[in-house]
Amino acid sequence: MKKNNEKVVFRAGNMLNPTPVVMVTCGTSVTDCNIITIAWTGTICSDPPMCYISVRPGRHSYDIIKENKEFVINLADEKLAAQTDWCGVRSGSKFNKFLEAGLTPAHAEKVKAPIIAESPVNIECVVKEIIPLGSHDMFLAEVVSVSVDAALIDKKETLRLDKANLVCYSHGHYYTLGKMLGKFGFSVKKH
Amino acid sequence: MKKNNEKVVFRAGNMLNPTPVVMVTCGTSVTDCNIITIAWTGTICSDPPMCYISVRPGRHSYDIIKENKEFVINLADEKLAAQTDWCGVRSGSKFNKFLEAGLTPAHAEKVKAPIIAESPVNIECVVKEIIPLGSHDMFLAEVVSVSVDAALIDKKETLRLDKANLVCYSHGHYYTLGKMLGKFGFSVKKH
Repeated sequence: MKKNNEKVVFRAGNMLNPTPVVMVTCGTSVTDCNIITIAWTGTICSDPPMCYISVRPGRHSYDIIKENKEFVINLADEKLAAQTDWCGVRSGSKFNKFLEAGLTPAHAEKVKAPIIAESPVNIECVVKEIIPLGSHDMFLAEVVSVSVDAALIDKKETLRLDKANLVCYSHGHYYTLGKMLGKFGFSVKKH
Repeated sequence: MKKNNEKVVFRAGNMLNPTPVVMVTCGTSVTDCNIITIAWTGTICSDPPMCYISVRPGRHSYDIIKENKEFVINLADEKLAAQTDWCGVRSGSKFNKFLEAGLTPAHAEKVKAPIIAESPVNIECVVKEIIPLGSHDMFLAEVVSVSVDAALIDKKETLRLDKANLVCYSHGHYYTLGKMLGKFGFSVKKH
């Protein structure tokens, strides 16, 4: 570590923050399934809608996702923060995570892997490609269905995701979203 | 859109939120450079440290990054929110973005593309692979250097990223981080 004016130069590492933090479900049915918490995830393409998750090959969910080529990204809200953390710390090889975390597996629309009923948004994904990178393999996937909590749809049929109390992850800590600073384009909006 | 108990099924789309929102710099020097704001970004591997950005081929920065195989991810804090938005709305083909946004290009440690001096964290990246997906191409990159604002290093030489006031992006809106809910592992921590 050396000083360079007001900047400190670090060893190269992962410092991209904040990130999403989501519970990914996998498996073949509501009784044969697992949950893995993932922060290495993001949208990679708008059209077709695609996202990725990066998973260590040693994780219990890795083989399940690799075999079934499907998973569901379940967004985490403030009420689910402790369960989200727990599903990231414990292994599905030792625990029935749905049971232990008090979460309900429900049928998805398009994939066999179940959704988490308590999650405000469920993003069903079909794996298109797996890219080994080192510690993690990246699963590139297409979004095939999205379900949201009906309470988040207002009278004008607009999705009010701002009412979902989503959480994010930054440098090892979970946070709620805070103050809304502006909408996309606010810096050029005429007043 | 049809109702399924308490869930509403949407057309498949990108609903992974919140996401990071960062200013990516590219170019060959502090005078020949551009800024593009990106939310489709994330960490894809821990070892080696790797991340990605997805960019539409029509964007001004696309050819620059493709040619130079380098970019810098500059994290956005609350003070930089308006500039971050502006660099996402305007094109480098029409504006000198550093000049117009009042941002300072500074020399990076390992790449030719400049860092944004005002950003609290600068992540220098070298492109390893470009994957065309549809509307966007994904640039997979290795992190080669990280610089942080010296004010974020405390007396114990610990990085206090919680003091950086980073912002995130969710469903078209910029947010500060809010309440800290717990540290990784808090759900199993003995009291």
